[in-house]
Amino acid sequence: MPYSPIGQSIQVLDTPALLIDLDKMENNIQKMAARCRDSGLHWRPHAKGHKTPAIAHKQLCAGAIGITCAKLGEAEVLADAGISDILVANQVVGREKVARLVNLRRRADVMVAVDDPVHIRAISDAATDVGVNVRVLVEVDVGMKRCGVPPGAPTLALAQEADAAPGVVFAGIMGYEGHAMSLDDAAKEAACKKAVGELSKTRNLIEDAGLCVGIVSAGGTGTLAFTPDFPGITEIQAGGGIFMDTYYRDGLHVRGLEHALSVLTTVISRAAPDRAVADAGRKTTSSHPSLPEVKDRTDVVVTGLAAEHALLSLTNSDIEIGDKIQFISGYSDMTVFLHDQIYGTRDDRVEVVWDILARGKKQ
Amino acid sequence: MPYSPIGQSIQVLDTPALLIDLDKMENNIQKMAARCRDSGLHWRPHAKGHKTPAIAHKQLCAGAIGITCAKLGEAEVLADAGISDILVANQVVGREKVARLVNLRRRADVMVAVDDPVHIRAISDAATDVGVNVRVLVEVDVGMKRCGVPPGAPTLALAQEADAAPGVVFAGIMGYEGHAMSLDDAAKEAACKKAVGELSKTRNLIEDAGLCVGIVSAGGTGTLAFTPDFPGITEIQAGGGIFMDTYYRDGLHVRGLEHALSVLTTVISRAAPDRAVADAGRKTTSSHPSLPEVKDRTDVVVTGLAAEHALLSLTNSDIEIGDKIQFISGYSDMTVFLHDQIYGTRDDRVEVVWDILARGKKQ
Repeated sequence: MPYSPIGQSIQVLDTPALLIDLDKMENNIQKMAARCRDSGLHWRPHAKGHKTPAIAHKQLCAGAIGITCAKLGEAEVLADAGISDILVANQVVGREKVARLVNLRRRADVMVAVDDPVHIRAISDAATDVGVNVRVLVEVDVGMKRCGVPPGAPTLALAQEADAAPGVVFAGIMGYEGHAMSLDDAAKEAACKKAVGELSKTRNLIEDAGLCVGIVSAGGTGTLAFTPDFPGITEIQAGGGIFMDTYYRDGLHVRGLEHALSVLTTVISRAAPDRAVADAGRKTTSSHPSLPEVKDRTDVVVTGLAAEHALLSLTNSDIEIGDKIQFISGYSDMTVFLHDQIYGTRDDRVEVVWDILARGKKQ
Repeated sequence: MPYSPIGQSIQVLDTPALLIDLDKMENNIQKMAARCRDSGLHWRPHAKGHKTPAIAHKQLCAGAIGITCAKLGEAEVLADAGISDILVANQVVGREKVARLVNLRRRADVMVAVDDPVHIRAISDAATDVGVNVRVLVEVDVGMKRCGVPPGAPTLALAQEADAAPGVVFAGIMGYEGHAMSLDDAAKEAACKKAVGELSKTRNLIEDAGLCVGIVSAGGTGTLAFTPDFPGITEIQAGGGIFMDTYYRDGLHVRGLEHALSVLTTVISRAAPDRAVADAGRKTTSSHPSLPEVKDRTDVVVTGLAAEHALLSLTNSDIEIGDKIQFISGYSDMTVFLHDQIYGTRDDRVEVVWDILARGKKQ
């Protein structure tokens, strides 16, 4: 039987290792689910941050109606894990991928974002060829200037094109107010109100034209404090908050969630009295846009990350080579995907080891 | 038989996909090998950037005497691929890792950096227990302030401790002039001269004390123009230049090498006349410290990377949804490790597909 750390202290784990405090993550999941439920909204949390079906199932158990993901390959992994209602919140382009999409439709009720007639025609051709229907959401640019058509008439035109296309089901619209995430509270509230207002007006325009807009989807962790309060949307995609990190706290002003994600690391060098080096660099934990910070210690501060090294500044610290310390993640979305496994812990003991099954599913 | 793209145009590959232009990489390998050979130095190229045994073997064929790597897990992968002379240019710490190190010594002539008596004692205990000898290099801090003891007497003291420890073979010293990499040419030359001078004086001090300093190792791609010219070192670790990237070109002022590494990506959105979005973000290609740039096109410029999206600015461009374009890597070391496979191409046709076998070997 292979060695298993389950039941052991996290101190037995070799490093670097990715840890999730299950109590804290479960609390965050409950809080995010409640925030949506209390606002009368569905929760369809984004899975691109965790890429782990076991965590998606915890979100569904807490009341999520489905899962959002970024890549078709992630949707395939979720479908294999028994999850049916999946939104790929991006455009799926190219003959190979569209063939995968319509074949995935056989085993999951997958839904995909579109922002151009080219997307709709490609899906329609492939879906009718295979004999399936694929739901689409028209992506609306609510101010972020990335993907998405402008609100109003351009969205209506695309909705009508989707509605008319065989093999395609127009399911609603989607916006992402990413441009609002890092604003201060007052400006963020105003930007969320404006973004949701654009979606809401566009929804009315489409419904006035006789189409049903079943879904109006929006919201990230950085706007979860405001976006659900404005009328017109039906579901929230916020997902990253289940991990919480220093970027959400300091850069996006997220409050009320607990730091659940960390990287266990070992001190490998004590070359000077006031500094040390640990074995987790930027290939292990993101330094962008925020550095990680050391959990439960004030005598050790992360001052920088090289590719393979963390640079630590010490103040009256008795830290020694071989000591294991935990870094609270600087940005969870750019950290988890660097790892193959995540260790689920409770009271600093390993309860479960999950393969991050959608890691590397870039296509 | 599974589908294989070998022999096909790169345009058949789904995206995002990591490509290496074999002609250009081979030219870069020859140039870097020649730079060391012409200076009378050995070449021990760093493999942390490519993590791919097939590429390490190309370096050995070009004259490299061995391979440098960052992690013990990378060394294990290289040993499995038939490479014996391997330097782990970092401190290996912890009971589990030291046990792996001494067991790896059975099948490879692995060598490791130390900068503290703690490292030497741990290796000595484990090596004598298993009945092997492990070579160590004392890491010297030549000005970067990361790992390493100061030059001179502290290095001599550690060299003597290594020499005296059973199961440990003192093989030489190592320094990394990383603080010089981004300086302008004149300042870089001066910093390299100073760093190599410190190594050289320390080597003399240790040899005057009666120990043999077989190896004096230094040098990165960013200092390859200068470091080999100063007397006192025996080998060069520079490796990343085989890929070349925009950071090496613009940030480290590296000249004479060709851009060999790229990410193939697909345009997924054309939401406005002057911009587009492609399917390769920061989970696929590094934006730090340099953005990628579009190969062979002046009408498309990468203006930013989100986690999953590349933002493109267009000038008089006829680019369409579905078009595949290539990004020259912004920083190869932070790009290759994000991928599972690399497509080796010649004249834009796929010649070989390599698994990046040391990907994820963080421990």
